[in-house]
Amino acid sequence: MTTEKDVAAAASTALLTDHYELTMLQATLNSGAAHRRSIFEVFARRLPDGRRYGVVGGTGRVLDLIEQFRFGDAELEHLRRTKVVDEPTLEWLANYEFKGNIWGYAEGETFFPGSPVFVVESTFAEGVILETLVLSIMNHDSAIAAAASRMTAAADGRPCIEMGSRRTHEWSAVAAARAAYIAGFDTTSNLEAGRSYGVPTKGTAAHAFTLVHDDEREAFQAQVDSLGKDTTLLVDTYDVTNAVNIAVEVAGTELGGVRLDSGDLLVQAREVRKQLDDLGATDTKIVVTSDLDEYAISALQAGPVDAYGVGTSLVTGSGAPTASMVYKLVQREDDNGQMVGVAKASKDKKSVAGRKYAMRRLNTSGIAEAEIIGIGEIPDGDSNDRHLMVELFKDGRRVDHSGIEEARKRHEQSRAELPAKALQMSRGEAVIPTIYQDESARS
Amino acid sequence: MTTEKDVAAAASTALLTDHYELTMLQATLNSGAAHRRSIFEVFARRLPDGRRYGVVGGTGRVLDLIEQFRFGDAELEHLRRTKVVDEPTLEWLANYEFKGNIWGYAEGETFFPGSPVFVVESTFAEGVILETLVLSIMNHDSAIAAAASRMTAAADGRPCIEMGSRRTHEWSAVAAARAAYIAGFDTTSNLEAGRSYGVPTKGTAAHAFTLVHDDEREAFQAQVDSLGKDTTLLVDTYDVTNAVNIAVEVAGTELGGVRLDSGDLLVQAREVRKQLDDLGATDTKIVVTSDLDEYAISALQAGPVDAYGVGTSLVTGSGAPTASMVYKLVQREDDNGQMVGVAKASKDKKSVAGRKYAMRRLNTSGIAEAEIIGIGEIPDGDSNDRHLMVELFKDGRRVDHSGIEEARKRHEQSRAELPAKALQMSRGEAVIPTIYQDESARS
Repeated sequence: MTTEKDVAAAASTALLTDHYELTMLQATLNSGAAHRRSIFEVFARRLPDGRRYGVVGGTGRVLDLIEQFRFGDAELEHLRRTKVVDEPTLEWLANYEFKGNIWGYAEGETFFPGSPVFVVESTFAEGVILETLVLSIMNHDSAIAAAASRMTAAADGRPCIEMGSRRTHEWSAVAAARAAYIAGFDTTSNLEAGRSYGVPTKGTAAHAFTLVHDDEREAFQAQVDSLGKDTTLLVDTYDVTNAVNIAVEVAGTELGGVRLDSGDLLVQAREVRKQLDDLGATDTKIVVTSDLDEYAISALQAGPVDAYGVGTSLVTGSGAPTASMVYKLVQREDDNGQMVGVAKASKDKKSVAGRKYAMRRLNTSGIAEAEIIGIGEIPDGDSNDRHLMVELFKDGRRVDHSGIEEARKRHEQSRAELPAKALQMSRGEAVIPTIYQDESARS
Repeated sequence: MTTEKDVAAAASTALLTDHYELTMLQATLNSGAAHRRSIFEVFARRLPDGRRYGVVGGTGRVLDLIEQFRFGDAELEHLRRTKVVDEPTLEWLANYEFKGNIWGYAEGETFFPGSPVFVVESTFAEGVILETLVLSIMNHDSAIAAAASRMTAAADGRPCIEMGSRRTHEWSAVAAARAAYIAGFDTTSNLEAGRSYGVPTKGTAAHAFTLVHDDEREAFQAQVDSLGKDTTLLVDTYDVTNAVNIAVEVAGTELGGVRLDSGDLLVQAREVRKQLDDLGATDTKIVVTSDLDEYAISALQAGPVDAYGVGTSLVTGSGAPTASMVYKLVQREDDNGQMVGVAKASKDKKSVAGRKYAMRRLNTSGIAEAEIIGIGEIPDGDSNDRHLMVELFKDGRRVDHSGIEEARKRHEQSRAELPAKALQMSRGEAVIPTIYQDESARS
């Protein structure tokens, strides 16, 4: 399998980084602060407007890329030629290899405002240069996973097919298919997501296929001859009723499915279901596509729809294309070797100093009640508290290798644990409150 | 320079493709329709809600990737193992190389609903398998370019800095920086965009840099010592007024700039300008950042701001993260070797059959009046009509090698040619109408 690793091996990911990470590195190498032990924390100050919960996406990809985040000769030469940093900094970069520890929420886990979803413990220098790459991946993949989760919640067990590759950057498309799968989508149209991550891929034909043949009958016959009767025929190129008749004439009642991609999908799905049943094609499925989002899926649940194909609104995060996560220094060593909490005081962008822990507080029925975030050591909690921090890297070695199947299961469980209100389509606040546990409050 | 080409060479771009492109290929190879000469057209049915014009982005990247769109052993083996297509199709793919012609709008050009921005002439098979990749690139890059163009229009000559890498997929970030540069941004924070495309990169320091030092004075001193007095100091970590005093004490009146990243930017910019002037630092620039978009930039034009740093809203297309372009079969050969126009009749997604030409109709002052789109041969037009179709590929060979500097100049010229209304921030219709010229209307 070619993986993102192969891509990165060719074009090192080291320069997928903001210029200022390296100038900060240079200035701190010079001042000595570069070597201070530091803790950086990734969190979202808020959820996108109206959303009830967030979904952690991208953790596995981040770990892949940190494992091989290296500055090779080509990268160093570029930085030298363009005078981004000085020679001592280039030398430091040439030897760079992440040696620290990382904890975080497991991929697929739900999260809330302030949840410390990814925590990097290293020197300042080692941690600061990972900021851009970590945020790029987690902001993108978490945004897609969150949108996907609402869609699969709305579909309530009916299969969802990811088909948005054409509406997003060509490599985002691969990550989006992966994130959607984690959040419950069944399949993707994206072949590279199949190769890189093993996401099941599906697809049959577009309108161009019908149009390149002399008529619809010829097109359907060609498709059935080549792909079998179990294929899905696209029936809205000209007239749906006519097309459905031809489809069943050509494939017989074993026809796998028909796809509707325009018009009033609910009305048409009902008409087509009746028509198929009347023709004896009672097992032929109806797949609908056409600018679907979680709201459209919700509305279509009333109809005889067997699968939803979702494109644009999935890959663009359904109105929230980024998860707004930030990567903040929350603790660092002082001159005496003591770790001290730090936080900026900017008016509208406060952060909370100190190393965090996090737990999901559950009631006696196992339903989530609150996101508990504390500073320092984890207290002996209520036995119903579910610990959320997982060890991902230890002393520079990756220790978490869970894959997308585990993340998918985890997401299903984590979502099922939320209050029922989380699955409503209506806009609202985070479905559980985030409670900061004061150190002094612990007994 | 490592380019997108190097990335693609490692992980072939051939699988950045929807599954159904290959099943259509298989079925048409079987029916014979695969070999029919065909014309596919990329266009947007509409502009994003409220937008006055679109901007063509990504053309150069598309041409790079088509040049090396090949199915290697690894890709073929994946398709064989997962049974996506049959052996004759795999054999056809193994020999695939685009042999056709491509025309389109030059990158950076403005466009309107229906503009045929990219036209592929080849066999059905050769053209259909490029659909996903072409759309992924053009939909993403055009969305970013369009948002960037509104921002640089609002900034009206003040420099704009692209710094959104952390809020989008790690490779989208590189393409976004490139698209923003084409639409008038001056610099980017993204180092890979510097390496791959020569976009100038800039950056100094984040809040973490201040926080890792014992106090602000120590941090500013470290930055000035390492990066020079010409650097830009971030002054909102604690108290802005205090920080500006320290900044000038440390760097003197030659201080390059200060950056504000929170609070009421307009009020603060005015206060800080007065403070800097009073301290004698009259040449020290004020850079503002913090969730800026074209509307915020517009409002800040009233203040003494020297540069805008834009992140999230740029890389997410400022509310329109995709350009909604489609790739449609509009003409194909029939059994007699004649080319015939084709179009689906789907209720809400009509397309117009036939090979298009396009011209920008200009008035006697050189201001755009209409987008003229016609079918067939280009008529002898008004001498003020500007022809828009450029030859990009001829008989499988790329003939256009214009780079991002040319695209940037082209965008500036094309935008300047639009009616003044195009640059207003208020939402509205496309600033010029799209007029379909009937073949019969030609004399």
